[in-house]
Amino acid sequence: MNKFLFRQIQYLDGESLTLRQGDVLIEDDVIKRVGVVSDEEAAGAEIFAAGEEWLAVPGYINTHTHIAMTLLRDYGGDQPLSRWLNDYIWPAEAKLTDEDVYWGTALGALEMIASGTTCFVDMYDHCDAICEATAKAKLRAVFSRGSVGMNDPAHRGIDENDALYARWHGAEGGRFRVWYGPHAPNTCPGDYIQEMVAHAKARSTGIHIHVAETRGEVESIQAQYGMTPVAWLDSLGAFAVPTLAAHSVWLTEEDKAIYARRHVAVAHNPISNLKLASGIADVEDLRGRGVIVGLGTDGASSNNNLSMHRELQTAALIHKIRHYDAEAVGARDVLQMATIDGARALGWADEIGSISPGKQADITLYKLDQPWHAPYHDAVSNLVYAAHSDDVDAVFVQGECLYKHKEFLTLDAEKSSPKPPPAQNAW
Amino acid sequence: MNKFLFRQIQYLDGESLTLRQGDVLIEDDVIKRVGVVSDEEAAGAEIFAAGEEWLAVPGYINTHTHIAMTLLRDYGGDQPLSRWLNDYIWPAEAKLTDEDVYWGTALGALEMIASGTTCFVDMYDHCDAICEATAKAKLRAVFSRGSVGMNDPAHRGIDENDALYARWHGAEGGRFRVWYGPHAPNTCPGDYIQEMVAHAKARSTGIHIHVAETRGEVESIQAQYGMTPVAWLDSLGAFAVPTLAAHSVWLTEEDKAIYARRHVAVAHNPISNLKLASGIADVEDLRGRGVIVGLGTDGASSNNNLSMHRELQTAALIHKIRHYDAEAVGARDVLQMATIDGARALGWADEIGSISPGKQADITLYKLDQPWHAPYHDAVSNLVYAAHSDDVDAVFVQGECLYKHKEFLTLDAEKSSPKPPPAQNAW
Repeated sequence: MNKFLFRQIQYLDGESLTLRQGDVLIEDDVIKRVGVVSDEEAAGAEIFAAGEEWLAVPGYINTHTHIAMTLLRDYGGDQPLSRWLNDYIWPAEAKLTDEDVYWGTALGALEMIASGTTCFVDMYDHCDAICEATAKAKLRAVFSRGSVGMNDPAHRGIDENDALYARWHGAEGGRFRVWYGPHAPNTCPGDYIQEMVAHAKARSTGIHIHVAETRGEVESIQAQYGMTPVAWLDSLGAFAVPTLAAHSVWLTEEDKAIYARRHVAVAHNPISNLKLASGIADVEDLRGRGVIVGLGTDGASSNNNLSMHRELQTAALIHKIRHYDAEAVGARDVLQMATIDGARALGWADEIGSISPGKQADITLYKLDQPWHAPYHDAVSNLVYAAHSDDVDAVFVQGECLYKHKEFLTLDAEKSSPKPPPAQNAW
Repeated sequence: MNKFLFRQIQYLDGESLTLRQGDVLIEDDVIKRVGVVSDEEAAGAEIFAAGEEWLAVPGYINTHTHIAMTLLRDYGGDQPLSRWLNDYIWPAEAKLTDEDVYWGTALGALEMIASGTTCFVDMYDHCDAICEATAKAKLRAVFSRGSVGMNDPAHRGIDENDALYARWHGAEGGRFRVWYGPHAPNTCPGDYIQEMVAHAKARSTGIHIHVAETRGEVESIQAQYGMTPVAWLDSLGAFAVPTLAAHSVWLTEEDKAIYARRHVAVAHNPISNLKLASGIADVEDLRGRGVIVGLGTDGASSNNNLSMHRELQTAALIHKIRHYDAEAVGARDVLQMATIDGARALGWADEIGSISPGKQADITLYKLDQPWHAPYHDAVSNLVYAAHSDDVDAVFVQGECLYKHKEFLTLDAEKSSPKPPPAQNAW
């Protein structure tokens, strides 16, 4: 039985992320109690942290990534999306084996854990390997088989997504879920998307899809179908199932209205969208309309790391400039996006996304003992704007400690991250 | 005598920042040799680092900050510049004492050192206290007395800048320089600026001034003088001395031409400019015209930390979106801005800004043993886009080690960073 006590620490309480000081008790897989924990109730617990220099936050939920793309980190950098994909990424990916992807996933899991992520939403190929490495890491995840329909006449991607669902949905103590992964409007024919949606619907699950990432995509769909990607997906009935629309940078007013009406959730990936010069999604407006917006890192190859901490720092800066409004998308907003809104985007807010009694114990613990935490006028502002990714000291998922005072407990860091750098490649 | 050897490490060589593998020898205050160091020449040196998991870069030059504003970190966040200054920062600053500023500087110095900065350019009040703390830290710096002329009828600020120059210019083994600090076009009358420029000219030194930070400043100068802030400063003869113009977000074509013609250097502060919703300076265009652009953090109160590592990561992302061009301001560009171009902006490139034999030994050493450094396809891309600020392992200034395997050697970190957080303020 897991039983951990954080005694008189600071924590961001509940879905409102209210800063409080008090106790947090983890028992088995859940948050048993917050606020005041009696000595009797705490009996037998490991006192993991004590005192106000500790800050517990809900574990971050990375709502869009391709975890094994850590293998392609820093490969073909500083180039636009289409050239980067066509000349670098896709040729390299074509050569990846299951074993490569297993180790790429393990490497990505190390990064995610070290930066406070407890759950991620993936879209990729070789999914059994991804699930196996994630099971070993003991992270929580939503997997999808990313399928490029235009290159898949036999619908092999859909079959594999079915198999992925059959094998892994609900597995690992309920930590794993499987959605369907039609890649994007401009890479999948309409009937292909409709078939995936039908398969998702039959299994009461959702779809995870790239939407309106670049202006080029919107223009191409507009030319082909005479409507925007969002309107086209809506016309196909794609939003009849829970939908997580990654990026969503280039949306019209009507597109945003469709998202709000159809309860489409967005995975916002600020660093990747900046690095590939895709654009800045209008998160301020989307949130104002009630659209749920989660935060994601995208793959390490367009980021180039998987730190949700860095992602929320960046998210809190760029919308201010998009609107020339220093009050746009503030510190608490991005923390909500990285936690409870990520959970809502996945229909999982009943179990994860906040430090609330009864929810799963997915918690990230920061240690605030560095110079950049002084003098500490405002804890939330400090966390988002001043703290470093490496201030994450510990991570718990489903009550289990994966990272203890910066030591990885579920993965072998030596084995999973090749020694940098081979000198012959470094020139 | 200091004598340190880095044996067969990776380093960014010379002003071109070419990645190489080899030896670096520090002797006394200078870089004695790079490439191949014979055992005879290395005799007696401390072998500080060995092997390709180490990467030496020129120490970062933070070209615009108000170091003691660490005291106001996270105070009055997520607000526009004018309200933030008038309602929060200026009233708080009015109460600061010399002793406060000493400790604020020590705190800022810890942050700078831990993130690889070896030199900073400051503008503030209570400058003796700043110099004393910086002398203790053993950082390199260019100080200026930031003077708001419109509130200074007796020209006390100019007198204090004179005294600052007399006491500290050339002090601390040449590590300290003093420039003049007229605060900004919209806070200083023309004759006030001209007097400071004359004082700078008489001492063969330069001026450090905020210019065109916000649209509001430009509009106000335009209304008052019928020209842009840059044109107005030029008409005053301000650019007759070396000028470091912080921010420079809102420039016309003619302004940029004046900068190029007058050799005005820019201190670009991307995070502060985003956070205060000021705008994104057109660094791509300025560099294309031959204008020297350094990088700065601004004060911790608008950032909210002093990590130049994080600053260069942000700088490498935002210009791509400003121009919708994934090739704009790339990884090597921002490294140049943070190192050699910062040195050029200060007229100090003969002594600092690159790992070159004969130059001062101001060096930052990264350790590349974390998951986010694998698989390491491209060292420069990895450093800028994937590495974390806390991967900085050691820092040398003028041949002296200030930070050794993450331990501060010149400052007492306990004493200089108050224990966070007082519980009664944390709610």
